[in-house]
Amino acid sequence: MDYFYAPGRNHLFVPGPVNIPEPVIRAMNRNNEDYRSPAIPAMTKTLLEDVKKIFKTTTGTPFMIPTTGTGAWESALTNTLSPGDRIVSFLIGQFSLLWIDQQQRLKFNVDVVESEWGQGANLDVLAEKLAADRTHTIKAICIVHNETATGVTNNLATVRKLLDHYGHPALLLVDGVSSICALDFRMDEWGVDVALTGSQKALSLPTGIGIVCASPKALEATKTAKSVRVFFDWNDYLKFYKLGTFWPYTPSIQLLYGLRAALDLIFEEGLDNIIERHSRLGKATRLAVEAWGLKNCTQKEEWFSDTVTAVLVPPYIDSSEIVKRGWKRYNLSLGLGLNKVAGKVFRIGHLGNVNELQLLGCLAGVEMILKDVGYPVKLGSGVAAASAYLQNNIPMIPSRI
Amino acid sequence: MDYFYAPGRNHLFVPGPVNIPEPVIRAMNRNNEDYRSPAIPAMTKTLLEDVKKIFKTTTGTPFMIPTTGTGAWESALTNTLSPGDRIVSFLIGQFSLLWIDQQQRLKFNVDVVESEWGQGANLDVLAEKLAADRTHTIKAICIVHNETATGVTNNLATVRKLLDHYGHPALLLVDGVSSICALDFRMDEWGVDVALTGSQKALSLPTGIGIVCASPKALEATKTAKSVRVFFDWNDYLKFYKLGTFWPYTPSIQLLYGLRAALDLIFEEGLDNIIERHSRLGKATRLAVEAWGLKNCTQKEEWFSDTVTAVLVPPYIDSSEIVKRGWKRYNLSLGLGLNKVAGKVFRIGHLGNVNELQLLGCLAGVEMILKDVGYPVKLGSGVAAASAYLQNNIPMIPSRI
Amino acid sequence: MDYFYAPGRNHLFVPGPVNIPEPVIRAMNRNNEDYRSPAIPAMTKTLLEDVKKIFKTTTGTPFMIPTTGTGAWESALTNTLSPGDRIVSFLIGQFSLLWIDQQQRLKFNVDVVESEWGQGANLDVLAEKLAADRTHTIKAICIVHNETATGVTNNLATVRKLLDHYGHPALLLVDGVSSICALDFRMDEWGVDVALTGSQKALSLPTGIGIVCASPKALEATKTAKSVRVFFDWNDYLKFYKLGTFWPYTPSIQLLYGLRAALDLIFEEGLDNIIERHSRLGKATRLAVEAWGLKNCTQKEEWFSDTVTAVLVPPYIDSSEIVKRGWKRYNLSLGLGLNKVAGKVFRIGHLGNVNELQLLGCLAGVEMILKDVGYPVKLGSGVAAASAYLQNNIPMIPSRI
Amino acid sequence: MDYFYAPGRNHLFVPGPVNIPEPVIRAMNRNNEDYRSPAIPAMTKTLLEDVKKIFKTTTGTPFMIPTTGTGAWESALTNTLSPGDRIVSFLIGQFSLLWIDQQQRLKFNVDVVESEWGQGANLDVLAEKLAADRTHTIKAICIVHNETATGVTNNLATVRKLLDHYGHPALLLVDGVSSICALDFRMDEWGVDVALTGSQKALSLPTGIGIVCASPKALEATKTAKSVRVFFDWNDYLKFYKLGTFWPYTPSIQLLYGLRAALDLIFEEGLDNIIERHSRLGKATRLAVEAWGLKNCTQKEEWFSDTVTAVLVPPYIDSSEIVKRGWKRYNLSLGLGLNKVAGKVFRIGHLGNVNELQLLGCLAGVEMILKDVGYPVKLGSGVAAASAYLQNNIPMIPSRI
Repeated sequence: MDYFYAPGRNHLFVPGPVNIPEPVIRAMNRNNEDYRSPAIPAMTKTLLEDVKKIFKTTTGTPFMIPTTGTGAWESALTNTLSPGDRIVSFLIGQFSLLWIDQQQRLKFNVDVVESEWGQGANLDVLAEKLAADRTHTIKAICIVHNETATGVTNNLATVRKLLDHYGHPALLLVDGVSSICALDFRMDEWGVDVALTGSQKALSLPTGIGIVCASPKALEATKTAKSVRVFFDWNDYLKFYKLGTFWPYTPSIQLLYGLRAALDLIFEEGLDNIIERHSRLGKATRLAVEAWGLKNCTQKEEWFSDTVTAVLVPPYIDSSEIVKRGWKRYNLSLGLGLNKVAGKVFRIGHLGNVNELQLLGCLAGVEMILKDVGYPVKLGSGVAAASAYLQNNIPMIPSRI
Repeated sequence: MDYFYAPGRNHLFVPGPVNIPEPVIRAMNRNNEDYRSPAIPAMTKTLLEDVKKIFKTTTGTPFMIPTTGTGAWESALTNTLSPGDRIVSFLIGQFSLLWIDQQQRLKFNVDVVESEWGQGANLDVLAEKLAADRTHTIKAICIVHNETATGVTNNLATVRKLLDHYGHPALLLVDGVSSICALDFRMDEWGVDVALTGSQKALSLPTGIGIVCASPKALEATKTAKSVRVFFDWNDYLKFYKLGTFWPYTPSIQLLYGLRAALDLIFEEGLDNIIERHSRLGKATRLAVEAWGLKNCTQKEEWFSDTVTAVLVPPYIDSSEIVKRGWKRYNLSLGLGLNKVAGKVFRIGHLGNVNELQLLGCLAGVEMILKDVGYPVKLGSGVAAASAYLQNNIPMIPSRI
Repeated sequence: MDYFYAPGRNHLFVPGPVNIPEPVIRAMNRNNEDYRSPAIPAMTKTLLEDVKKIFKTTTGTPFMIPTTGTGAWESALTNTLSPGDRIVSFLIGQFSLLWIDQQQRLKFNVDVVESEWGQGANLDVLAEKLAADRTHTIKAICIVHNETATGVTNNLATVRKLLDHYGHPALLLVDGVSSICALDFRMDEWGVDVALTGSQKALSLPTGIGIVCASPKALEATKTAKSVRVFFDWNDYLKFYKLGTFWPYTPSIQLLYGLRAALDLIFEEGLDNIIERHSRLGKATRLAVEAWGLKNCTQKEEWFSDTVTAVLVPPYIDSSEIVKRGWKRYNLSLGLGLNKVAGKVFRIGHLGNVNELQLLGCLAGVEMILKDVGYPVKLGSGVAAASAYLQNNIPMIPSRI
Repeated sequence: MDYFYAPGRNHLFVPGPVNIPEPVIRAMNRNNEDYRSPAIPAMTKTLLEDVKKIFKTTTGTPFMIPTTGTGAWESALTNTLSPGDRIVSFLIGQFSLLWIDQQQRLKFNVDVVESEWGQGANLDVLAEKLAADRTHTIKAICIVHNETATGVTNNLATVRKLLDHYGHPALLLVDGVSSICALDFRMDEWGVDVALTGSQKALSLPTGIGIVCASPKALEATKTAKSVRVFFDWNDYLKFYKLGTFWPYTPSIQLLYGLRAALDLIFEEGLDNIIERHSRLGKATRLAVEAWGLKNCTQKEEWFSDTVTAVLVPPYIDSSEIVKRGWKRYNLSLGLGLNKVAGKVFRIGHLGNVNELQLLGCLAGVEMILKDVGYPVKLGSGVAAASAYLQNNIPMIPSRI
């Protein structure tokens, strides 16, 4: 009936796509409708206003593009830059690597600042480059806020400080795919010029909308950006924004209603409460990892991610066996180690619409898997450490007090 | 948007209604249709054939009545008995109590055999009564297979043995509401005359179908049964079975498709595998209770239920506070103590479409609640005990090997 | 994949179960939840208040019973009457026939007032009986507001006038299954003592809730009513109403949310607007029938039903062939002729969540079927007649002006 | 509750997005899942095989890109061509205009062959150009199979014949957005090098997948094509095809299951039967237009489209008023006239999962609207003409015979 049916719920702990709340699934459960009727523009208008809130911007202009994160990247780059432009980009894991690959294929002149996987962006090198760049040859800084492959969160406030310190006009382009709507992110305060995320991450929707938000400076940059673009061209959107019909081509009706429902839930819970929930989930996961006697792939606390934890396994264990076993025996979906850390880490995604008891079920599952594959874990140890913390910190559910 | 929204999934561990599998929710996501078209009879025919398998009967006749378990009870009684008929009925908890109340209000002469709540049906008394009843004044034995209020499973095989031993012709009417499709149940082998369940229990559907299965002897009894009945009258069904249109009144189209999907999943997993899964879940729960230093409401191992565990709390704790706190802080739904055990027990339902990691998340939640309400539990202890057992006993998921 | 798949939408024009609005399907697309948590009682409270509005009562007490219309009938009768009680009941078609059958099987002394099928209840005979009944041996008048088999609507206001005229205290029990929420129905104004409907009719939900509304006088009658009842006993509900938990047994979570959504839509459209819409649909259908040169089974205009039209076919045509052909060739579901009018009429149900263009599609389909079976219809004639009327009478959609 | 609620179903007759079959809505009603588990690749494999059938190709390679038709265009062009390449492109309406605009912005040297809107591609000019192009400077012919703005279907077989006649090696790129899976389309037989469609058209899904199919010759062309591309690069897909994981970035889980269900329904109905159904719907619509005394925007029968009909209105009527009125009064969604034909035509989309009675309901609605806006239509005339044809030509539903 289904592919590879198993009883009970699938425990989805990959760092995306993530669990969709039931009310959002319901909202998307519908037929198509005419996107040129008054209904879709009326709804779209509220979406464009409300989506800005999750970026913490009042001055940005959002674009909800029918694409994935990869497309959102391309949109951010091609609308603001010209082939040959020098950009500084940080390589710290698989997703920053892929973005850099895209940057190079789009013919930018990429100044790659590499860190060991498990470390954050090397901002000292950035400082050096900015200091040296008196003639402002650097047109943009590209940085992944949260590297999903290694569970590393970069410090964007510092990036902004450095740019300000050196009075450098480079655009600041941020991949917020696994951070926005889950981690503290402040587009206006941090002077981010282009920020982007994907619907299937912390927004907890299906894949299908790349949300890109552009600062006034980024919009200004489109006027001189010579990169070839059509599908991803913001100007086509802006033209339809002015007309009040909003869409240069057909959007997904279902995803628009889903996004409306998702934003309603987000505002009901409260963005700051969501960030705190992710902080709890991240902290609890890291306490469990410690209790198991395992290491976090992330090398320093300052980089710890509250949306995904990459766990290093001992050399005698293949981490991909852990992921396979989770799926085959426990109906638990964990993230694989990618590229340089393939076989060495497995990842627990704890982002989006997920709560503490779901996480504890996952951690209990990981413990059993670890035992299955021969790691001498003490069953219950991680759950005990995590729940000791959680029992002290979970708030009452506001709607139920 | 929703009533009392909370992030993440609700952890539903009441002993009914239980979690519905996603494929079943999908199957029910549909418009109405004409129940007199060829489609509904064609599907109904397969349902009537297949539903017999979960009763383990080949000779029984099933009725899928648009009602609840209470209605199914009434159907079982009124179709086979006449007012004034003597029946032996066992009072061992809230649901057997309610059934007895119904039996009395339907004007039967009920011989109540009471046990302390937490004990099973007193079959010694049954033996005495059967031995004494040389003239066969007892027309029926009514027994709840699994008392949901106390987590007690009665031994039906022994009931049958006693009836056979004394050559007693009384009908055997069994409430299998929280057992059928989860516990070992054998209608034909145990000579059950009427067995019944509700769709919202182990079948993992919404409430709305009371499924009643009648032996040939029970069908024969309808001919002399003088209890007044119309809505619940099997004969109206039998008339339409003969016509091949099957329905004396409008069924729920959605529930029929849902039942079709539910049965498909049940057969895909395998009824015996389902019973084993419930055995694992029950055992794991009881190990956790023990690790917490708490007592099972069920007084002897022979009565332990694999679908629901009623946990006794110390006198200084009000068990209803545990249930409230689960809902208010952890989005965890537990069962209240009912009637005589109100305030004294809380219940963990572990039946239907639920898997081991879901249960471990629930157990982790119960531990935190216990700590919240002042019980000196060692966090992680129950999960550790349960997962030590589970890690040794969970099979690989057959479709994924 | 599906049973008897056909491309495009099924055109559902049986008089029940009827088309469910998409927002209601969405609202029901959900997992089970604990019906003893605060959420379900909170919602139930609003439902009990709001459901009274569709009965146009402020003094009535509603019961939302997990059953069908047949069960709702039984509930109305057994809660207010005792075996042997004399009741006057009108036989005018298949559904009044079935209700009378139930009344007789429930051991009431039924005074059947029969009319030719196609005529309304013979109220002259009622007047005679009331006039003659000086000692008030008649305990109840049972009348079907709208006979679904023949498309006949009875005049309830006249029934009330007669009872008042003769100062007769008999209870007035009304089957509003195919009228309430579609036709003009006024429980309080007409002094109806028990009114009832089913969720799958004008409420446009799946089958599964029988809604019964009792006047204070009907509630008073329960105290002396000796009919045996348990599942259908209103007192069990009243007990739980007082406790604030509302449910004596498990309701369907999905149907409760569905009813909430259905009522929201009903109030958004406005009950009076709904009644007018049905008036338009009924009138348009009758104009089409006339244009086709066919006769309405309903013999006089005063009885014309706005929820279902039974169309007489010429003797050389078997009306069941029309229904079969609709399903086999046009994906159109029409109602069969039942019992006395089997083969002689087919029925067009035009009740619930359906609009004018849907009806015109149906009428166009009926025309083609009529031609298929050899009736010399002028294609387009019925649609022309219906749309001439509709084009003059359809209002603008209020939300879209 | 909903935006601009209206009772009954919305009658969706825009030429996209179109009506989604209920089984497909059901299939998409699901949570996310890990796209790196074995399930998604296993399903993807079947999709890639099966999707070729709707293109009628055995040698093509399909790409299911998370994008819209506009993105699919871009993918077709950038993977096969280099900036500056000369292409011949036919401007016959709004969608060919937009594609040409894209071609120009992507820096191709576009040889635009313009026709009056309402006419097909001028293939005489193509012949001349091919004849003249001895040195094969033309690298590609870009042609829209079915121009959705004017309801014009181009003759692709002739295009192929011309290319063959002149032995010209230009690539043949075809926009099949509103034709594939509804009109006769033969990728292999007609030597199409790239064909593309969007999920929200005849496939009857939500928007979100651009399906592009490349011939071996097109794949070969990617090796020398210098257009910058990343998100739309087929090579990224091919790399993952080889790995057996299929996806270079996250697909929409829901759309994949939806596509699986849609293809299952398509094969159940049969692609040729689907094409015939569209032929019936197109013919019936044109007969209605004729009966109303209105003109088809399409000037000759050879170009008549079976998926969309653009209807010319008299000069004293603004066609956009017709569309507005449909939505405001009849819950009917029609297509606007675009660009050059704005105000002059309205469009009836009759593609995807729609049947004859739905169309007749739409046509009845259009008649009433025409009367509303002052056009002297004879009500019922179009429906009569259409149903006279349909009643002779609709086959029995195969599954129901």
